[in-house]
Amino acid sequence: MANLAPVISDIEDAAIRLRGHACRTPLLNAPLLDADLGRRVFVKAECLQKTGSFKYRGARNAVAALSDAQRAAGVIAFSSGNHAQGVALAAREMGSKAVIIMPADAPELKIANTRALGAEVILYDRDTEDRDEIGGRLSGDRGLTLIKPFDNPQLIAGQGTTGLEIAEQAAAAGLNSADVLICCGGGGLTSGIAIALAGKAPALKPYTVEPEEFDDVARSLATGVIQTNTRRSGSLCDAIVTPSPGQITFPIMAAHCGPGIVVSEEDALRAMAIAFNRLKIVLEPGGAVALAAALFHRTDTKDVIAVASGGNVDAPLFRMALEKYG
Amino acid sequence: MANLAPVISDIEDAAIRLRGHACRTPLLNAPLLDADLGRRVFVKAECLQKTGSFKYRGARNAVAALSDAQRAAGVIAFSSGNHAQGVALAAREMGSKAVIIMPADAPELKIANTRALGAEVILYDRDTEDRDEIGGRLSGDRGLTLIKPFDNPQLIAGQGTTGLEIAEQAAAAGLNSADVLICCGGGGLTSGIAIALAGKAPALKPYTVEPEEFDDVARSLATGVIQTNTRRSGSLCDAIVTPSPGQITFPIMAAHCGPGIVVSEEDALRAMAIAFNRLKIVLEPGGAVALAAALFHRTDTKDVIAVASGGNVDAPLFRMALEKYG
Repeated sequence: MANLAPVISDIEDAAIRLRGHACRTPLLNAPLLDADLGRRVFVKAECLQKTGSFKYRGARNAVAALSDAQRAAGVIAFSSGNHAQGVALAAREMGSKAVIIMPADAPELKIANTRALGAEVILYDRDTEDRDEIGGRLSGDRGLTLIKPFDNPQLIAGQGTTGLEIAEQAAAAGLNSADVLICCGGGGLTSGIAIALAGKAPALKPYTVEPEEFDDVARSLATGVIQTNTRRSGSLCDAIVTPSPGQITFPIMAAHCGPGIVVSEEDALRAMAIAFNRLKIVLEPGGAVALAAALFHRTDTKDVIAVASGGNVDAPLFRMALEKYG
Repeated sequence: MANLAPVISDIEDAAIRLRGHACRTPLLNAPLLDADLGRRVFVKAECLQKTGSFKYRGARNAVAALSDAQRAAGVIAFSSGNHAQGVALAAREMGSKAVIIMPADAPELKIANTRALGAEVILYDRDTEDRDEIGGRLSGDRGLTLIKPFDNPQLIAGQGTTGLEIAEQAAAAGLNSADVLICCGGGGLTSGIAIALAGKAPALKPYTVEPEEFDDVARSLATGVIQTNTRRSGSLCDAIVTPSPGQITFPIMAAHCGPGIVVSEEDALRAMAIAFNRLKIVLEPGGAVALAAALFHRTDTKDVIAVASGGNVDAPLFRMALEKYG
């Protein structure tokens, strides 16, 4: 599968395709936070990306890479979350149309938002229906192209544009050497950033961060073999929970990343409150695990960059995080 | 006083001084928000600026413009809010030292934050002491230079760098003509942006936005003469409450701005909740009035840019905004 891995020129091509479309998110720094911690912490704020997460980058690049005939026929994705919104917007912007398969018990707001972005949402019953069967049938009938959530070279290249920006912004900030902590689900964002940093800023070292009990990537990196989570759902960090790393993403992460870091849900909530107070950004729990690792799981004084992957959190959960830790 | 007004080259000089120090804040756009409103809304997110508001830009430029001897002697400012933190950080970064005069009943957190940024905080009793007398005595004794909060040409030029970035970012987004709505207190930010837009993007038209009962600028613009507020405090939008526009800032605003816009505190809270949901940024009430005007006080379909001036809000107030409108 190694031949499917994107290379640095694929990411540079993606950056050209995304120019004027994706937001060049800022690399934020808070002097008061640095003072608290005794070292510099920078946050790549992908929560500010269109649709509230980095997922738009990869979706836009994947849809852009299709043939005109494929775009005209349309795309399909399985997602109840950030990938759904990224694919929906990318398809609409490029004159394609997206079909998104979502569980019928997905939050109303996520269904409504995906529809508002122009997608056709098809709901299925998790207990009685097989989403792959529905997806396969629709793809066959309509000639739709499946946009996978992470194991897709063009999608990884799109996510990797985050890493190109980090390399440039770190250099501009005088940050020559740092650990780069990345919220990790299936590994699309991490592997894209890892390739970009290896090519452009090898002194910036990537690490994955996951929530407790959903640490398939950390265990896979430790053993050298793809591992699977026992639990499949029920995490506050749902945005980054996947069964296991991908066939394409895992070898890339194994080649470039340090040991995986694991944080608790409570630490993710604490990091959300600190991001509110010090950085003025809204993070979802899954989007806050890298910042949590930077804040609570480091004992050295090396500069650190935390990639905040998304901010799609409902108001009641955010209020709870502020009430506990704000 | 017109000869004290900065010109476009002063703002360009400020941009060079701020490069690598101030954050180039993003011009955010949310497709879902555009869909709700039927036109494009962009938000210049100055809440993401260092210290959580645009104030750092002007403070850094004003401190940079001092002579070496003045910087060595130190600077002084009167502020319990965003100006205090901007001046404190700018002075510390440039090897100067800041004395900040704050009322003894200012929020503990703001006093602590200002001290954490390296400033010497001197508290005074609002009822029994005269802050100007204290400030004058300290300045005389120590040779400190006063950094006024808005009526200072170098400070206005620094705030104006926000406008240069808006002109560049709007062009990159294909936004050739738009109304630019700006949260307005004493007018430092508005007048700086107005000069920058007049020089670089004259099809972007500035407007001031203020909270009800503190609409001194709107009344001054309407009458052509500087007006004063009856109430001096007690607004949720405290960050942008000033008695009246400045001697330097008012003529600039009168020359460039359309009629002033006034919004309610409740609309500011509603805008905070929408910024949370759609843009993933944290706004304080005073920093949300321009977005509130864009959302609730416009009936046409012209593209609009709202400048979100700051995000220094305590968690309980933010939770209240989300509970009511989130």
